[in-house]
Amino acid sequence: MAPDQRIVLKPIGFVRTQAMGDEVKDKTRTSQIIVHHELTEALAGIEDFSHLFVLFWLHEISGEQRKTLKVHPRGRKDLPLLGVFATRTMLRPNPIGLTLVELVKVEGNVLTVRGLDALDGTPVLDIKPFDPWDTAKDAKVPRWWTKLNEKAQPP
Amino acid sequence: MAPDQRIVLKPIGFVRTQAMGDEVKDKTRTSQIIVHHELTEALAGIEDFSHLFVLFWLHEISGEQRKTLKVHPRGRKDLPLLGVFATRTMLRPNPIGLTLVELVKVEGNVLTVRGLDALDGTPVLDIKPFDPWDTAKDAKVPRWWTKLNEKAQPP
Repeated sequence: MAPDQRIVLKPIGFVRTQAMGDEVKDKTRTSQIIVHHELTEALAGIEDFSHLFVLFWLHEISGEQRKTLKVHPRGRKDLPLLGVFATRTMLRPNPIGLTLVELVKVEGNVLTVRGLDALDGTPVLDIKPFDPWDTAKDAKVPRWWTKLNEKAQPP
Repeated sequence: MAPDQRIVLKPIGFVRTQAMGDEVKDKTRTSQIIVHHELTEALAGIEDFSHLFVLFWLHEISGEQRKTLKVHPRGRKDLPLLGVFATRTMLRPNPIGLTLVELVKVEGNVLTVRGLDALDGTPVLDIKPFDPWDTAKDAKVPRWWTKLNEKAQPP
């Protein structure tokens, strides 16, 4: 594959949520993933997993923002200036969001999930079941990460 | 965003590995991610994480294969026929691979990682640091998954 080749994706569905702005970061909220009707069959068996990874397209990020190389995490100047690949910032060359969600319910082509931090209308690119290979018990994170998350530690 | 809109991505680098075919599934093997030179700065600070998610483009999947809706996991007919979104098959509408890897070493624009199941030359789309929000301690998987992985349980 030539290094300048373009990759073309088509959304498999979109997010529906009542949450506005920063409300989407509330991990207790539920939202829906509306999968395109012609792909409903591709959900068969997904209800047997409790958690999913959702890959979505951060469609509000501009071409100019995709050129960002360094950021302060969440704009906080008290935290170090870091490369975008060392953070989960939305400002990245390929603005794909990746979030682990809890699967609450499956009804036809609609998944109800908890913890998806995506705005209403966000295009969804892929859905993958979470399994034990996706975790590292002994994972280390830097000090700035712990500082950033001290008010909202994961369960 | 119109439902038929196309999303265009550009690789941020590529995979270099000596592993051929199924050898890439060996979780103990290391491989390199060669990040494009102009993005080297975007790696600053990544060395402080022990684990990363790598998103890569499964470039050997054809347009026809992307239309697959159901599969037997790894082609095993003794396992149920499932929707592609209920499995980690490469045959999916947007063939993006997602693998958790251990970060071994960072040298300029080259990351050495352990456990990346991608072929030599695979285009890399994104690199994200793994953090405690990416895991679910109480995750449930179906019986077929346990059966499929009984010979190679994650650590």
